[in-house]
Amino acid sequence: MHIVAIGGSDAGISAALRARELDPTVDVTVVVADAYPNYSICGIPYYFSGDVQPWQSLAHRTHADLEATGMRLQLNTLATRINPQARRLAVRDEHGESEIIYDELVVGTGALPSCAGIAGLGELGPDDGVHVIHSMGDTFALDAHLANRDPRTAIIIGAGYVGLEMAEGFRARGMNVTQLQRGPEVLSTLDPDLASIVHDELVEHGVDVRTHTVVKGVEKSSNGLVVHAEHHGEPVAHTADLVLAVVGVRPNTSLLETAGAQLGVGRAVVVDEQMRTGIPHVFAAGDGIVTHHRLLGVTYLPLGTTAHKQGRIAGENALGGAARFAGSVGTQVVKVFDVVAARTGLREHEARAAGHDPLTTQTVADDHKRYYPGAQSISIRITGDRQNGLLLGAQLVGRLGTETAKRVDTYAAALFAGLTVEQISDLDLSYTPPLGSPWDAVQTAAQTWTRTHHTTGGTA
Amino acid sequence: MHIVAIGGSDAGISAALRARELDPTVDVTVVVADAYPNYSICGIPYYFSGDVQPWQSLAHRTHADLEATGMRLQLNTLATRINPQARRLAVRDEHGESEIIYDELVVGTGALPSCAGIAGLGELGPDDGVHVIHSMGDTFALDAHLANRDPRTAIIIGAGYVGLEMAEGFRARGMNVTQLQRGPEVLSTLDPDLASIVHDELVEHGVDVRTHTVVKGVEKSSNGLVVHAEHHGEPVAHTADLVLAVVGVRPNTSLLETAGAQLGVGRAVVVDEQMRTGIPHVFAAGDGIVTHHRLLGVTYLPLGTTAHKQGRIAGENALGGAARFAGSVGTQVVKVFDVVAARTGLREHEARAAGHDPLTTQTVADDHKRYYPGAQSISIRITGDRQNGLLLGAQLVGRLGTETAKRVDTYAAALFAGLTVEQISDLDLSYTPPLGSPWDAVQTAAQTWTRTHHTTGGTA
Repeated sequence: MHIVAIGGSDAGISAALRARELDPTVDVTVVVADAYPNYSICGIPYYFSGDVQPWQSLAHRTHADLEATGMRLQLNTLATRINPQARRLAVRDEHGESEIIYDELVVGTGALPSCAGIAGLGELGPDDGVHVIHSMGDTFALDAHLANRDPRTAIIIGAGYVGLEMAEGFRARGMNVTQLQRGPEVLSTLDPDLASIVHDELVEHGVDVRTHTVVKGVEKSSNGLVVHAEHHGEPVAHTADLVLAVVGVRPNTSLLETAGAQLGVGRAVVVDEQMRTGIPHVFAAGDGIVTHHRLLGVTYLPLGTTAHKQGRIAGENALGGAARFAGSVGTQVVKVFDVVAARTGLREHEARAAGHDPLTTQTVADDHKRYYPGAQSISIRITGDRQNGLLLGAQLVGRLGTETAKRVDTYAAALFAGLTVEQISDLDLSYTPPLGSPWDAVQTAAQTWTRTHHTTGGTA
Repeated sequence: MHIVAIGGSDAGISAALRARELDPTVDVTVVVADAYPNYSICGIPYYFSGDVQPWQSLAHRTHADLEATGMRLQLNTLATRINPQARRLAVRDEHGESEIIYDELVVGTGALPSCAGIAGLGELGPDDGVHVIHSMGDTFALDAHLANRDPRTAIIIGAGYVGLEMAEGFRARGMNVTQLQRGPEVLSTLDPDLASIVHDELVEHGVDVRTHTVVKGVEKSSNGLVVHAEHHGEPVAHTADLVLAVVGVRPNTSLLETAGAQLGVGRAVVVDEQMRTGIPHVFAAGDGIVTHHRLLGVTYLPLGTTAHKQGRIAGENALGGAARFAGSVGTQVVKVFDVVAARTGLREHEARAAGHDPLTTQTVADDHKRYYPGAQSISIRITGDRQNGLLLGAQLVGRLGTETAKRVDTYAAALFAGLTVEQISDLDLSYTPPLGSPWDAVQTAAQTWTRTHHTTGGTA
């Protein structure tokens, strides 16, 4: 039995680890396009901030750790074609083309940085001072730029998770950072009322944040790189030594598409809950596939946590198992300087689009008893369904040290279990004055929702 | 409609607040034995450590806050007898005896410090340098002792939550502290393998911890207070300027018992899930009543969080509602110096006594990605049922800053929802490198359990 996984990131490695864990006799090969298997891509911004040194620390496991599990790594090897009939995978490495015979294949080719239709992004690259940040190769290219040319000004196009983390990284290096955001507020995954707290934190730390700024193109000039944009419809231009584009990703599906896989939402590869692609003996996992979501059905929501789970399931099922992905609820968290922003489930407009009759309330509650030193407030938005009272989503923003990142997990567990907002108050949560309240902030926010719901005539 | 609540602590005040919240026209009186309604008894140790000053800060709400909700407070008033037939409550205050006519009564008389059969405890008091710590009166007595007599040495009998917090409080004042514990390890609510971490933290901070020390009696001598004990059966004596006895509580039931209420487990008053005592128009809540527990049925587990919930339900039902207490899962947390110890659900022996076939595993997992600065380990014990795979309990010990207090809440939510240990891995928990891992520590511990379970031939 030979299981082949394509991709050295979360999905591919998780599949390989799971297969070897369940059956230490199974032959497992992981085909990795570069020389950096199992690197924590989420950690790259902390390399640039100087928090993580050297870059080798970013490996979840070293090459030796991985080989010690009994898997074989085929590095610097690009998978070029799947032949499902013959169960052969064509690959290319420095020695040329060859084929790998597999019994079961797990494809974890992930996603690629999007250019979001911005002119020039496709043509300009690291040598021109224009960067993306999606692989260790991107990391080395940016690192070389910073080391060799000492840029003092940077424009970050995008204000999502990576964009915000990189703003922090560049500021930690003393660079001037201009952050351009298409929408009305940074961190468009949160409601603006909460994202504005993150915006304030960026400004507090010297980031020049420009919202409502739709980037049209990037070009080189004698003064540096010029980013052309529209701000409320008016043309504007920003100039800097360096441009970093972090405007989302698109699933990297060419390999599976050519092999006959179906594309679905977000042009991601369709799989079932067992990570089967429909092509015999071919599984897929990670950022290249659709995401089964407990509240939305099938969507596209690429996240590292999800890739780990999907990879684990693909690995188990490649071995003959019948594990099922229980589904994402879209839990996410980001640290931006000293603020932590988290969400799980749906926001109001997402819930409405999914057929719910949502109600959203906002509460500010202390992380622990106010009388004990260091109490800080957490802002929490709760979205629930007016008709059946079900919890649909929660968003939280608090300062570092308020345990906001793990408070969102209580809501995530409640969403997983299908609890109502009112049942959040029934949960038996921990309390000691230095770390909580008899009604935890999580519950205070739920009680605000319930009170508003009753006041506004909900039927639950 | 006149609702009378007896008791100015969590249960009584919660009942009164809830009734006023639901019906701002209802007449609510709270009869409070002392002059300190709605004080945070859990916060008292932090007054002695100096973290909380002045003592008035310990009030969850001020007298004015409470009256602003529309409730009437009758302070320094002892409830002496319930006449259920006439719906009259006899009370005594400085003006003598009188009666209050009620429509519905909520009794929240709480618990009293236990003497645990220790000779002398019943006779010696604050004037002798022997203290308990259960009310603001106790707090003032201890405060006066510390201020007027400047004791340099203290013996704390007991090493539960309050005992450990008071050890920290006394050490913060530079006192020498000897902590005597009956059992083999401090914090007997945790398995010794985890409680030993707390023990080490106490020793690290200069507390002289004596386990296996069964206290027999306390007496005054010319050298100070002498505590006589047996250590592994051998008589030992410890001498100090001050003795603090924190050896548990017993339900304060005399009022309800006299009125005809039934006593159950732990000699606490029996109530149903609606907080009805069986005596017409008499509800009860808090540390004086039995605890409905989702895993144990009915037990006695007095906790502030539970008293708040029970009080809220009693208040709603006194008003004619039919709210039900969803049940405790026994979630608890304590901070001891820089360590946080938490638990929820059952430990192995408790699970076995409740008819389960438990398996317990221990895991050490990082609070966040090791490559990001400041990562620290959390020790986690998971107890699950071998037969059906259900999660039965979790215990966690980590350092301050590891979000251990809110990580236990994920397990608490899982217990509430009746998840299996394996389903913990399915939860969509938050991840960012500075605050978590793609598989959170909570999930890593669950996966250890599942692996062990499969290896040892579990049937789930």
